[in-house]
Amino acid sequence: MNPTASPETIVGDQVSPAAKLGPGASGGLESVMMSLRPHLAELDRFLRGQIEAFEPEIQEMADNCIDTGGKRIRPALVFLSGGRVPGPVQPELVRVAAVVELVHLATLVHDDIMDEAEVRRGRRTAARSYGPVAAVLLGDALFAHALHLAAQFPTTEVCLAVSASTRRVCAGEVVQTLRRGSTDFTVADYQRVIELKTAELFRASCRLGAALAGQPPAYVEAAGRFGRHLGVAYQIYDDLADFFGEEKRIGKTLGTDLASGKLTLPLLLLLEKLSPAERNELLQEIQGNRPPQLPLHLQQMREHGIFAAVAEAIQVEIEAARAAVAPWTRSIPVPGLLALCDAIADQVDELRPVA
Amino acid sequence: MNPTASPETIVGDQVSPAAKLGPGASGGLESVMMSLRPHLAELDRFLRGQIEAFEPEIQEMADNCIDTGGKRIRPALVFLSGGRVPGPVQPELVRVAAVVELVHLATLVHDDIMDEAEVRRGRRTAARSYGPVAAVLLGDALFAHALHLAAQFPTTEVCLAVSASTRRVCAGEVVQTLRRGSTDFTVADYQRVIELKTAELFRASCRLGAALAGQPPAYVEAAGRFGRHLGVAYQIYDDLADFFGEEKRIGKTLGTDLASGKLTLPLLLLLEKLSPAERNELLQEIQGNRPPQLPLHLQQMREHGIFAAVAEAIQVEIEAARAAVAPWTRSIPVPGLLALCDAIADQVDELRPVA
Repeated sequence: MNPTASPETIVGDQVSPAAKLGPGASGGLESVMMSLRPHLAELDRFLRGQIEAFEPEIQEMADNCIDTGGKRIRPALVFLSGGRVPGPVQPELVRVAAVVELVHLATLVHDDIMDEAEVRRGRRTAARSYGPVAAVLLGDALFAHALHLAAQFPTTEVCLAVSASTRRVCAGEVVQTLRRGSTDFTVADYQRVIELKTAELFRASCRLGAALAGQPPAYVEAAGRFGRHLGVAYQIYDDLADFFGEEKRIGKTLGTDLASGKLTLPLLLLLEKLSPAERNELLQEIQGNRPPQLPLHLQQMREHGIFAAVAEAIQVEIEAARAAVAPWTRSIPVPGLLALCDAIADQVDELRPVA
Repeated sequence: MNPTASPETIVGDQVSPAAKLGPGASGGLESVMMSLRPHLAELDRFLRGQIEAFEPEIQEMADNCIDTGGKRIRPALVFLSGGRVPGPVQPELVRVAAVVELVHLATLVHDDIMDEAEVRRGRRTAARSYGPVAAVLLGDALFAHALHLAAQFPTTEVCLAVSASTRRVCAGEVVQTLRRGSTDFTVADYQRVIELKTAELFRASCRLGAALAGQPPAYVEAAGRFGRHLGVAYQIYDDLADFFGEEKRIGKTLGTDLASGKLTLPLLLLLEKLSPAERNELLQEIQGNRPPQLPLHLQQMREHGIFAAVAEAIQVEIEAARAAVAPWTRSIPVPGLLALCDAIADQVDELRPVA
């Protein structure tokens, strides 16, 4: 496991250097990520210490899974929402950051079973390396360990929040997976899924970070709203990257959503623009009755300005996130949260197809 | 869902009438189960009320899974360990009984994915009915909901106990599953697996039932020891029934352990008795290199007195369970716990092959 997470891997699935984040934001983000280094290093030390809690048979898998060289965006939200970065590392925040990251890793492990994904962040998934059966078990063990760490706080607050969020994340996965290949999946359904599967854990990370740092309840709620909007923005960005990213940069196979019959925002907006015949063909692909025509749909998306429409939806969420914490920026220093907003906006810009 | 669990389905995977439990114990068990009826009815009402907490897409599955017409042995342990049966139904005990039952059901759902089991308790498993992907999600949702209910107690006690037990149950599944087909699996390994995957949740059920009923700490520990030994006895019985049961009565396919390369106590003891050539053939079957020869091994088990040896191991655990609560039977009335011991002993007797 790497003892520290590199700042350049925090935002997006990209493993691109921070210099590529764009001149406007990268300075701000880079300095925020520098100030987070001790927190994320402590988190990695903590997580590494948890490996021993797993049975010998599963330690290698757990180690591999925890050492994703990954972005730790939810832990970053925990620390940044606390409003005390730069500053000393608070052990309670490290523990709760570990909890949300373990819940996230557990959902990834189970997710990759459904997706039959080969690669995540440039590595083979647990499901591919060890088989789906081991991946079911590894995910369960990570979930259970996360909840066990949550139960070790003095009050039930963390356990309540984390178990509620975990339930909602699972619910999002349920809806997304069981409605795959379904052609009556609407933008409202999509919104519901991403609120549950992604925004919920972002929200919980921000709320718990703020609460455990001892911030006032009204700010805790504001941080929660920030997290929810950022999570929605982030998931839409991720779904956009599945069409407009570069495989080498985002570290996973492109076009998997189309191939697996998952209607995400780019496809949903495209469907609204297509002729009845084109629309029918795309729906046949979603249902698995025709092979997916990724290049064709990329062409159609370009013709109908889908990139701009999705980017606009992301921008709306980013603005809502910024607005949620705006009243607090004088009393509670959260430049890191705002830098994350900028960073996502910049990442979206980087995907923009050349005209 | 049936509003009440029938007393005859409590012990073992059997769905046989209570009258078949044998003259010695059935009277005792039957009256205990009668006195548990209001508690189990209240539990079923509570569990049914939880269905709404699941997303619409998963409610039918959750309903099907909760309505197993099943034995509710862990909830029975919660209520009986409280030492207040017969007596008014305590809401805290109902809630904690629901928690342990949901954790158990979640592990069954994931278990059946690994086992590729067709049938459990005479019904198609979730993995068969809805596919393995849905079964992964259903199990996750049940786990998360169980932990969420656990977090709703005023202190972290229940959450800590349940998350720790869940971790250990998962660990047991990990070891069992990942060492399938492995021929260096020993009796000590087997003991470790059943302590984790079965005895742990029995132990937690008894401890939590006793603690939430307000019993003294020394009794809470004694009840935990009772549960652990009863759980070990129960699992060995279950593994014995996989060879010596009748499919119609135990409600699942026989010989699945052999077929899936799982070395349980009957096979482990048989291996010690076989000639090197026979031993090698059996190990080849475990490794999946030869088709399983169930009738042959049943014959070998009969020749080598394996049934009696396994029955003896069960008896040792039952005696240890009885001994754990024996000092308390004057001050805390737990005839129900002792009746469960008798019932398992009787069920073992029923499996005994005719000489």
